[in-house]
Order: sequence, then structure tokens, then C-alpha cells
Amino acid sequence: MDYLNEIGKNAKIASKGLFKLSTKEKNNLLIKLAEGFENNYNEFLTQNEIDLESAKKNNLKPSFIDRLALNQKRLDDIKSSFLQIASLSDPIGEVSDMGTLENGLVIGKKRSPIGVIGIIYEARPNVTPDAFALCLKASSAVILKGGKEAINTNKALVKYFRQTLERNNVNPDFVQLIEDTSRETAYAFMKLNKYVDLLIPRGSRPLIESTIENSTIPVIQTGVGNCHIYVDDSADFKKAADIIINAKVQRPGVCNACESLLIHKNAAKDFLPLISKELEKHNVEIRACEESLKIVNGLIPATEDDFYTEFLDLIISVKIVDNIGEAIKHIETFGSGHSESIITENYSNSNKFLNEVDSAAVYVNASTRFTDGFEFGFGAEIGISTQKLHARGPMGLKELTSYKYIIYGAGQIRN
Amino acid sequence: MDYLNEIGKNAKIASKGLFKLSTKEKNNLLIKLAEGFENNYNEFLTQNEIDLESAKKNNLKPSFIDRLALNQKRLDDIKSSFLQIASLSDPIGEVSDMGTLENGLVIGKKRSPIGVIGIIYEARPNVTPDAFALCLKASSAVILKGGKEAINTNKALVKYFRQTLERNNVNPDFVQLIEDTSRETAYAFMKLNKYVDLLIPRGSRPLIESTIENSTIPVIQTGVGNCHIYVDDSADFKKAADIIINAKVQRPGVCNACESLLIHKNAAKDFLPLISKELEKHNVEIRACEESLKIVNGLIPATEDDFYTEFLDLIISVKIVDNIGEAIKHIETFGSGHSESIITENYSNSNKFLNEVDSAAVYVNASTRFTDGFEFGFGAEIGISTQKLHARGPMGLKELTSYKYIIYGAGQIRN
Repeated sequence: MDYLNEIGKNAKIASKGLFKLSTKEKNNLLIKLAEGFENNYNEFLTQNEIDLESAKKNNLKPSFIDRLALNQKRLDDIKSSFLQIASLSDPIGEVSDMGTLENGLVIGKKRSPIGVIGIIYEARPNVTPDAFALCLKASSAVILKGGKEAINTNKALVKYFRQTLERNNVNPDFVQLIEDTSRETAYAFMKLNKYVDLLIPRGSRPLIESTIENSTIPVIQTGVGNCHIYVDDSADFKKAADIIINAKVQRPGVCNACESLLIHKNAAKDFLPLISKELEKHNVEIRACEESLKIVNGLIPATEDDFYTEFLDLIISVKIVDNIGEAIKHIETFGSGHSESIITENYSNSNKFLNEVDSAAVYVNASTRFTDGFEFGFGAEIGISTQKLHARGPMGLKELTSYKYIIYGAGQIRN
Repeated sequence: MDYLNEIGKNAKIASKGLFKLSTKEKNNLLIKLAEGFENNYNEFLTQNEIDLESAKKNNLKPSFIDRLALNQKRLDDIKSSFLQIASLSDPIGEVSDMGTLENGLVIGKKRSPIGVIGIIYEARPNVTPDAFALCLKASSAVILKGGKEAINTNKALVKYFRQTLERNNVNPDFVQLIEDTSRETAYAFMKLNKYVDLLIPRGSRPLIESTIENSTIPVIQTGVGNCHIYVDDSADFKKAADIIINAKVQRPGVCNACESLLIHKNAAKDFLPLISKELEKHNVEIRACEESLKIVNGLIPATEDDFYTEFLDLIISVKIVDNIGEAIKHIETFGSGHSESIITENYSNSNKFLNEVDSAAVYVNASTRFTDGFEFGFGAEIGISTQKLHARGPMGLKELTSYKYIIYGAGQIRN
């Protein structure tokens, strides 16, 4: 597709310019983006209104429309996020592992830009400024492909970004929006490995799976979280209950919320009635294994599918297990490799769980809700990786960069 | 394909067992593999002979047959490499960046296995033990898919590996060979992302490109090296000549050999005659730009294609450039992102080159031939990555691992 090739080529050219931009210049751009943002609120809201009208006309779900909508508060948040990202330290240029080889070569790893990053996402206009600002700070050009339902909002946002770049004498192609929102263009975008170095799909499982299936660009898989909490027989029940309620109830629609509860058989008799009551108080529906049904009356029997499901809702699956080994095995089989927590006072079991559970974040006695770039102290987040290559868990600025080896010689040749 | 699914499933199961294998147990297996290796030389050579016979019958090139052939010396080298890999320190379990968050959570990054690694390669039987031993030490199960011309040799090798694992009471499925060498099976293997976490193609450009095109598994791109040496106007000509001859002549068939020479216009008049003579002494064919032809008689005019070409032979392309900026631009356009070197005595130019050249390894005053896992002190190498995700440059044991976050709590919940 000529249209996409042009976008790709322009991004590649822009990315070379970003190599030369200093930290100060990048931060200055982010500050300018924040400063001028408010003057454009009217335009953003007008365009967003057009998107919202069509969404309503097409009878899209209220939760969909809520994610699509901008308002004064959300725009203010975007504005602050530009300043917040400007305040983060710049990963580019950091040198690590520097040392001298036997032959006198001095070698180190220098953090360097990825180049061109593609982001494919759904109708969430807040991803547009977020992805742009993070990529700019990480010195990569970005190509955005948002959901068609947000196209007018995205156009207005990206138009403002490009104007701001141009006014500050930098190449506006640091950020480009693919305005053709057809599915064919999305697929063609996924094949643009000649120009794009990394593709990050942000959104639902079908979007992520289709990207993995079709992309020739390296993809980072984000987001699906079927997170488990395992209550060991040595658990402090008060801690366990607080953590489970927090992980399930505080924000049930996010990927680090708890979806499944595993309980040691020796703890079940006392703990299951207690936690069932607490969960019911918070309107959580419990889908339980056969053993659980014998202990507490009136629970809904769980199907095998329930144990695979990321509910993203006030629903939790519960299973009683014989021992920690069975808990780990269950997580292996049904989990998505996102976040899991053990509640225990037993030293050996805490170590066993930390060693053997193969997830991006593994906790002892804490809520899975902490798996988040801000909570981990990164100051930003582009997504949570559930794959094992390049980055795992929350991805901040550093995870949006690559490295190269720099080698200082004095005429060395190889024997 | 049921056959491949079975292999994938078995590898996944085996990989879980590898999580629990201690460093001592892994090293012990590598020592046992070395100890019993010699007893099987006859069988390896007999099976290799069958492969060699068919290769000759099919009139394959002598260089192809050379790569396919095993002999006493090559088998001895493989044997030593098992012991060498046993002697390397184990990256698994290493914890970095450990610290305490404001809320008291203690968080660190723990190096952990990738899981299942697939290797696709051509008819080079030495890749078989090499990939297996590295993956074993990195605690990942490996699925091997070698070239059909080496199938009998590969079968014999993998049979021995599996027997040795079994005799030591570990799951033989840590290493599996895809014995069906058809192209359809290769493509189906590339889609096995349900079970395989990482796919590494090792070999020619067409193999690598077809893997990138077809794989749904994350791929690490290795190997293509169109490496440049740029002779700045401040260069020490003696250093420059030594380095160029070393980088071009010492082993022309490898990816870190120099393929293209860029010379500052102010240096060209003196340096080009000098280096041409040296290169001709070593039977190197020079394909030169128009400006060069004016300075030295009898050079072959270079086509644009020549500047894109990884010759892997005693051929070099030469171009005179106006300044360091043009040299960097030329590398950007024609290079493959592998290794480039500047020969200079100018401080600012050395920094400019290190900062702005976007390749896996960037040198000042040294031969590009050093880009190699052993030379960099990794003690091993599975390949040289020319992509920017996960690993760049030589990949050793550490680059064959992932990490996970481990978090020690005391009942923390999220506000």
C-alpha cells in the first residue's frame, strides 16, 4: 500500500532526527505540548462529540461510550501527563556494563532508541497522547492506528501534536495517524516491518491475537490478566481477606484484578465461609469448585471455562487445592502469566511460589493490583507485557528503548 | 498438525521441569554429555557419511558439503563446548534492581527461563549440540528443526542427547528434533506460538526472511552483516590499513567481516592508493565509486547494488564521502545494522559516530571482527541479533533468558 509505505518512510526519516534531539529539547517539546493543550479543548471536545454521536447512533454499549468520551477532567489529565513525562529521567544514552576486555577494547552497552514504534488500539482516545508522549521521550517515532469510532477525536489530537512539533522546528512525522481505519489497512500496517521496529497492540484479546497472527513486525503482547491469589494453609486470614477484596473489588475491570482464588484444603473450612461472606458483601459472584460447594451453601458451580476466564467484572472463580504444588500447577494450566500472589506465613512456601510460578509479577502477601508502571515506580506505562521477550510486566520508558554496544579501540585487530 | 502439537506439548511440559533443575544438576548433565560423547563418534560419523553421500549425489557445492561434514576434530570441539558451557556462570536466578517502594513492598527483577525455544537452521550439524547445550544451561527446552540434508546426523546426535538425559533421570523432551524435514512442517512449526516462546532462525537471509514473514512466535533476527569501516580525514593510516585488512581478509565468509569501505575525501588521495595495494596483495576485488576511479586506475566500478551487498567473499565496495555526516547517512541507507567502525584521531568525530550510527556494535579504531559472543566475553553465542527488540548484537546465555518481577509484601493493598 503506497499510503502506508509513505507513512512508514516518513516515520523512519523522522526517527533518525530523534537520535539527535537532546533530553532538554525533548522535555521542552513536552512542556510546549502541555502549555498549548488547553487552547484546543474546544476543538477536541467538538470532534469528540461527533464520534460520540455516531457511537450512540450505532447503539454502542455505555461502557464503550464512556471510554470514548473526553471531558474537561480527562483533558486536564492528559495535559498533566505531558509534564509528568517531561519530568522523568531520560533512559536514552545511559551506559551500563562498561569494562575493558583482555585485548584492551573498552566495551559498554548504551541505551538507544528503538526507531519506529507502531501502536494499534481501540476507541480510547487517551491512548493517543499517552503513546505519543512516551515514544517522544524514548526518542522513537510513532505511528498510531486507533479505533474507527474515535477517528475524529484522534485526528484533532494528532493535528495539534504535529502543529506543535512544526512550530518548534522539529519534524512533525515523529507522530503520524493512520486515518484510513479499514481492516485491510490494519492488516497491511502489521506487515510494515520494513519501516516499523516494534508493534504494540493495546486493547482486547481479539485485537492482540489478530496482531500476533498477522504481524511481521516484532510484537509485544500486553494485557490479558487471569490473575490468581493462593491462600496457603499457613496464611494470616485477615491479611488474606483484605488482599483478596482489594484485588477483586477495587477496580474489577482492569488486567491486574484478581479473577481466581485458590485455597489450601486445610484452610478452606475456616477461610472459605469467611471470604464468601466478605465477597458477597461487595456483590461479587462466586463460581466455585465441587469441594467448595460442600463447605458453603448456595455458591454457583464453576465450569472448567470459568477457570480460564478473565471476568473483568465482579465475579471470581474459587478452587480448593491439596497443596501448594497443585496451586502452582493450576496457575500453570489456567493462568495468563500476568500476576499471581501467595498469602502465606510459611518461609519455604513463599520461596517455592516465587521460584516456580512463571508469571510477569509474583507476589507474597500483597495485592495483584500493584502490577502497574506507576506503582512500580517507573513514572509511566505503555502497557503490561505478558510475553517473555524484551520486556515482561509493566513497560515504562526504559522498556521502550533498545541498546547498542559501543567499543573504544586503539587499533585492535582480531587474531 | 498433530505431530507438531505433540512435540510442542512435550516441550512445554519438559520446560516446567527445567525450572526446578539446579545449576549443579544442569552442569552435571553437560559434563555427562561430554563424557559419553566419544563413545558415539563411530555412530555419528556413520550417519554423517550417509548424509554426505546423498549431498554428493545431489551435486551440492563443496562449501555446502564442508559445512555438513563431521570429523574427529569437529566432534572433539563439540565435546569441549559441553564442558565450556558447564563452566559458565548460570544466569538463571540472578536478581537485579532490588529495592523498596514507598509502601514497603520489596521488588526485584529475577532472571528466569524463556520456556521453550525453537531453532530453525540449515545443514550445519554443529548447530544441533550447540543450541541444545546453551538452551539447557539457560533452563529452556529446545525444539530443533535442521536442514534436511543433515537429517541422519541430527537424528544420531539428538538420540544420544535424549539417552543421556534419560539415563540421568531427567525428561528427554528438553531436546526434540523435528524429523519431518518438509517445508510444510517448517511453516507449521513457525505457527506453534501456543507452545514455543521464542524462535531463532540461524542461517541464510532467505531462511531468516521466510521465518519473519511466517512466524507467529516472537523471532530474533540474526546474522546479516553488511559491515562498514569509515576512514576519517584524521585517521592514522597505519591503524586504518591494519584494521581494514583484518576485517576484510581474516575470515571473509562471516557476518562481522567488513564489506564496505568509506573514505573521507581529504584522506582519499593518499589513503586509497595505499589501501588498494594492500587489498590487492590479499586478492581482494575492489568495487569503487566514481570518485575513487579517478584516483586509482583499474578498479571495478561499483553498482548501487554492490553497496547493499554482503559479499561474504574477498570483495569490498569503496566509496569516497564528503564528511562524517555523509558516511553515517550512507551506513543508514545501505547497512544492515550489524557492526561499523570509524578510524579517526578526532575526539568529536569518534563521539558523533558512536552516538549516531544505529548498529548493534559501533567501534572506534578497531576491527568489526570482534562482534562475537566469545570475543565480548560471554563465553558462548547463539547468534548475533540485528534487531532491536530483546537482544541486540551477540547473544550469550543471558540473552537466552527472560525475567520476572518478584515482590515481597506484608499485607499491602492498593489505595
